[in-house]
Amino acid sequence: MDYYSESVKMHRLHKGKLEVVGKIPIETNDDLSIAYTPGVARPCIEIDKNPEEAYALTIKANTVAVVSDGSAVLGLGNIGGLAALPVMEGKAVLFKEFGGVDAFPICLSTQDADEIVETVIRIAPTFGGVNLEDISAPRCFEIERRLQEALDIPVFHDDQHGTAIVVSAAVINAFRLLQKPLHKVRAAINGAGAAGTAAVKMLRAIGVRDIVVCDSKGLISMDRFSEFGEDKMDLLEITNNDNLSGGLAEAVRGRDLFVGVSAPNVLTEEMIRTMNTDPVVFAMSNPEPEIMPEAAKTAGAKVVGTGRSDFPNQINNVLVFPGIFKGALRARASRITEEMKVAAAYALADMISEEERSDDCVIPSVFRDGVADAVADAVAEAWGQSGKDNSGA
Amino acid sequence: MDYYSESVKMHRLHKGKLEVVGKIPIETNDDLSIAYTPGVARPCIEIDKNPEEAYALTIKANTVAVVSDGSAVLGLGNIGGLAALPVMEGKAVLFKEFGGVDAFPICLSTQDADEIVETVIRIAPTFGGVNLEDISAPRCFEIERRLQEALDIPVFHDDQHGTAIVVSAAVINAFRLLQKPLHKVRAAINGAGAAGTAAVKMLRAIGVRDIVVCDSKGLISMDRFSEFGEDKMDLLEITNNDNLSGGLAEAVRGRDLFVGVSAPNVLTEEMIRTMNTDPVVFAMSNPEPEIMPEAAKTAGAKVVGTGRSDFPNQINNVLVFPGIFKGALRARASRITEEMKVAAAYALADMISEEERSDDCVIPSVFRDGVADAVADAVAEAWGQSGKDNSGA
Repeated sequence: MDYYSESVKMHRLHKGKLEVVGKIPIETNDDLSIAYTPGVARPCIEIDKNPEEAYALTIKANTVAVVSDGSAVLGLGNIGGLAALPVMEGKAVLFKEFGGVDAFPICLSTQDADEIVETVIRIAPTFGGVNLEDISAPRCFEIERRLQEALDIPVFHDDQHGTAIVVSAAVINAFRLLQKPLHKVRAAINGAGAAGTAAVKMLRAIGVRDIVVCDSKGLISMDRFSEFGEDKMDLLEITNNDNLSGGLAEAVRGRDLFVGVSAPNVLTEEMIRTMNTDPVVFAMSNPEPEIMPEAAKTAGAKVVGTGRSDFPNQINNVLVFPGIFKGALRARASRITEEMKVAAAYALADMISEEERSDDCVIPSVFRDGVADAVADAVAEAWGQSGKDNSGA
Repeated sequence: MDYYSESVKMHRLHKGKLEVVGKIPIETNDDLSIAYTPGVARPCIEIDKNPEEAYALTIKANTVAVVSDGSAVLGLGNIGGLAALPVMEGKAVLFKEFGGVDAFPICLSTQDADEIVETVIRIAPTFGGVNLEDISAPRCFEIERRLQEALDIPVFHDDQHGTAIVVSAAVINAFRLLQKPLHKVRAAINGAGAAGTAAVKMLRAIGVRDIVVCDSKGLISMDRFSEFGEDKMDLLEITNNDNLSGGLAEAVRGRDLFVGVSAPNVLTEEMIRTMNTDPVVFAMSNPEPEIMPEAAKTAGAKVVGTGRSDFPNQINNVLVFPGIFKGALRARASRITEEMKVAAAYALADMISEEERSDDCVIPSVFRDGVADAVADAVAEAWGQSGKDNSGA
């Protein structure tokens, strides 16, 4: 199937993918008087007296803003907020379909970090959470941090954390299969943008200690420090313990794990052959991965995953973000803590039973029943255990 | 029925009144690949090449932002954006129910006019129109004007224009009934805020020439000019031709028409007795009108209307705003022109046939079939005839 032309056809037929519908019928004057004036005055008064009541009486309870400036959309790059709308609508459809969460696309006409932060703060009353999407690095880091500081609702940049959580779940199961404890895993990550940076942090959070990262110019290493902004300096501080330098070939040599969030066809069979025995390769550049799965297998990769649905082990964010927000909204979490992300990764990994676990099954299908609920339960529980205490931190 | 407690009960049961749902099912990998990656890249590219395609491929085609800062909510006054959310959700429900228009509440955490304008401009890409709601005068005038200047989508402050259009439709039919041409009608309007100001302009647009306006301190008249800001000076310029001064009693004496958008119980039977023969009284303060209908009738009023559903002639904005936006979106109008508003008023008036027209029937019920479509057709046609040519004006 030609997804591209089918997609245009479908979008044109329906004029977009979302609609906003009432939960209650309006068929009589009584219906009107309850849903609107005069009755609606009373819920307003209740919220005015106690703002927390907004979570009991309005859509804030279950509604997420999907916010994008369109600066880093799929493989398309900077196409702006308007042209990014089909992606954000799609995200909102998935929020509802997989998590039962209402989500609405907020596509911005500005790409200025200060203005984005200001704008989201000003429209926040309607929403119970903010999902940032397709905002380019390094601005995305600052925008997420500043918004989370300013708001008492969860702010989550899915390109960073969603990706990092799904790949962590796959990593957990891959090394369960290989019976190698995570603290002994030596990892190479290709890509030092939003997803790569978050993947480093998540892998550390689940126990991986030895990580090297490449950007398009090679290893993030001390000898390049003069090129680095704050974000790559932060990365340097927590990676490349042995201060290796060089390119991707040097980065992957002797490694147990390759995580690609970079560009098509950059990982060669020769490189895989220099990795440790039974290496794990997650090549998530989409739609064209860093190496095709057959080639990776031929070169000796034991477990291979991609972002694609037509190969085994699809590493897809939709396994995570609906459940993350479903759980966070249910728990009334004011932010998504590290503990919640780790809990989500383990909940997702645990969807695959020991019997089911295999080279070709380290992560569930996106259509597996119960995924979002399992993630949501874990996330809500983790907030209950740790988040509340640290929520002022 | 106690609408207030029923409303709280309903809101609590459903946690708000809206949900955001997908138009298409996501059941297979193909569904995912068409609605989201990789297929969705193509609609994005089409919009990037030609922004107009957003109207063919996204929800922008049929989606309106219902924007409020909660500064003038119903009779509640300034309760802020969060507490106004139940009203804005209700508005969105009515947009969908009556006009098939998707609407989403944007409740703001700012009440600064500059910030409101900035914010709406920045989130505009998602939307095909902006309905401003419950924003206090005189800021509402400036906000609407500046937004309409900045944006190429219709911006419509319903509290002003929606109210003005509905009351104009009722005025048209009342004086059809009384066989008095509109240019001979002498009108008194009580209330010089958003709705009163817009009512003056609409009545002039349908041909009423002799209008006086009262605010809470009395007639808008030359002797008070030192009190007035720009907006009331504008009103003074187009009203009170005879430079009357005094209070409401002086304002209504000898008038054919009273339009109240003010406060409960301010119009007395004595005042009505000083009006012209067979006066028309639209007392729209809600839920308590300027005078109760029975009292107005007793004092000699021929046609009486209120904002309430439990009396005849309910002057309700829901008769207008769904059709206004439905028509404007269909016509791809870049703004709502005076011609479109007048066309909407006549289309609404014409829903009542000559046979049906009576003291108790000058305006259709909000549940009358075909109202929104009639308004939409008239609005779209009026844009086609006049708006396009003047759209740069």
